[in-house]
Amino acid sequence: MIDRLIEKIEETRNPIVVGLDPTIEMVPQYLKDEMYETFGPTPKAVGAMFTAFNKEIIDRIHDLVPAVKPQIAMYERYGLEGIKAYLETTQYAKEKDLVVIGDTKRGDVSTTAEAYATHIGGIEIQGNEYDLWKEDAITINPYFGTDGITPFVDECVRKSKGIFILIRTSNKSSFELQDLEVIGSDGKSGPLFYHVANMVDQWGENCVGKYNYSLVGAVVGATHKEQGIALRKQLPHTFFLVPGYGAQGGTGADLKGYFDQEGRGVIVNSSRGIIAAWKNNPKYKGDPNLGKEFALAAREAVITMAKDLEQAI
Amino acid sequence: MIDRLIEKIEETRNPIVVGLDPTIEMVPQYLKDEMYETFGPTPKAVGAMFTAFNKEIIDRIHDLVPAVKPQIAMYERYGLEGIKAYLETTQYAKEKDLVVIGDTKRGDVSTTAEAYATHIGGIEIQGNEYDLWKEDAITINPYFGTDGITPFVDECVRKSKGIFILIRTSNKSSFELQDLEVIGSDGKSGPLFYHVANMVDQWGENCVGKYNYSLVGAVVGATHKEQGIALRKQLPHTFFLVPGYGAQGGTGADLKGYFDQEGRGVIVNSSRGIIAAWKNNPKYKGDPNLGKEFALAAREAVITMAKDLEQAI
Repeated sequence: MIDRLIEKIEETRNPIVVGLDPTIEMVPQYLKDEMYETFGPTPKAVGAMFTAFNKEIIDRIHDLVPAVKPQIAMYERYGLEGIKAYLETTQYAKEKDLVVIGDTKRGDVSTTAEAYATHIGGIEIQGNEYDLWKEDAITINPYFGTDGITPFVDECVRKSKGIFILIRTSNKSSFELQDLEVIGSDGKSGPLFYHVANMVDQWGENCVGKYNYSLVGAVVGATHKEQGIALRKQLPHTFFLVPGYGAQGGTGADLKGYFDQEGRGVIVNSSRGIIAAWKNNPKYKGDPNLGKEFALAAREAVITMAKDLEQAI
Repeated sequence: MIDRLIEKIEETRNPIVVGLDPTIEMVPQYLKDEMYETFGPTPKAVGAMFTAFNKEIIDRIHDLVPAVKPQIAMYERYGLEGIKAYLETTQYAKEKDLVVIGDTKRGDVSTTAEAYATHIGGIEIQGNEYDLWKEDAITINPYFGTDGITPFVDECVRKSKGIFILIRTSNKSSFELQDLEVIGSDGKSGPLFYHVANMVDQWGENCVGKYNYSLVGAVVGATHKEQGIALRKQLPHTFFLVPGYGAQGGTGADLKGYFDQEGRGVIVNSSRGIIAAWKNNPKYKGDPNLGKEFALAAREAVITMAKDLEQAI
């Protein structure tokens, strides 16, 4: 997965992952009308809206970007019908040859972690194999320690899939735990995320690919510039999935130093800034007959973001 | 939710939550045969197995225990059909008046946490309200800090639901992060979980119920006896959901000191030890014609566990 991701970034010359995190508010009126008329004010209508919305976006951006990252919470919110939309989205993105990063933030103790690891590893039922979630990689929470991570790493190796472990998240309160000053088992003191980073490095050391990056990557927010730069030095083999760009405040200039000397090692996420771009674009937002061309605004937003990121590489 | 849980524990005289964490291996042959014959070797067959399995268990234990805790990972493993079984399980448990604790370990940054908080808060679509997940409480990961928790606390207050935030998990590797020595913002040093515990105390201080326990509870593993006792003193208003009993090694005697002086403040989870009890029970395990009476073994296991827990209270 990691070699393919890096190659797709080089092909597209674009280290952007589009966050497919829809809300009802982001869906253009024509789609809302269509689905509410067909299914009533139900979770089924919302699921159908999200699927159609995502497919339009994917159609307009799949040639420009290497990857998409659906945030499963936005789908789980609508129960079974929401999950169905999530699965239709991962399936469609896969068909368009995009790398699919499921933003699941899953994590649990050992045997339960094994169950979650089927997101990337698939399952077998009486000799029949199923890949039900269609993700190439997922995001993982480190709070449980090694036995909560190993089942995922095993599936990464077995199926050449990826995980991104949370080190430093992009939200305002993230400092409360992640920056706590810690004395590690090595006697060194430093913020908690520094120790988590050392663990991520160890967890991923046996699955480094041909570009010197591991199948075990990390989530490192765009909103903590100095820390991101320090983490790049600390973790030369860890690929960074970077949230917090755009709507959350990070800019391309902030990301200088997250990339390695060859301009690799990072994929930057933008969600609202791309998929809801039509709502701030004068060409589309006032149009009472707006149809599927809303997704052209997403395409324009990707191109603008790509230019902004050029500063960082 | 917390007052109801406490009252149900006193009615049943039994602080046990039955972990509904099925695997195919736990399902008796008659049910496997039936579902594979009907649906083939498919996720649909497994989902149907899990639903039928859980319903038999619930029928046999719902008068003895206050609550059940389905572990969503075991269902997510089988994709959409698995999630469907999870929802049929929460629905059925609710109909039997059990408190339903969804073991979701969800957690994310602020706006995404809002989406996950609909697990307990429900959703509204064009003025129509839906409670899609049917959980009375869910488990939450604290790694994101306050803005990842507030959306859940808000829904707890608004809908009188509950959350249990991970403080100290029961797995072997949990010490790696959770025991790291930390210097807190108060200048005090102590293990990371101690600081998380202080946060949990603050997060829950405005939703304390009539028995002096908050809607914001905590997960505290049975496998760290001294720490559990210290946490009870540190957190007089925090109800503990305790995993790690039985299969993971904890005993009733280990839990002395987790309870308060009135014998309240704790609900102890057992999963495999109850739901897979038939596999170790000579009355059932060798029976080639074993039918739905497998669930009687679960009932017997609950009664045995209740006796063991009497030591602790």
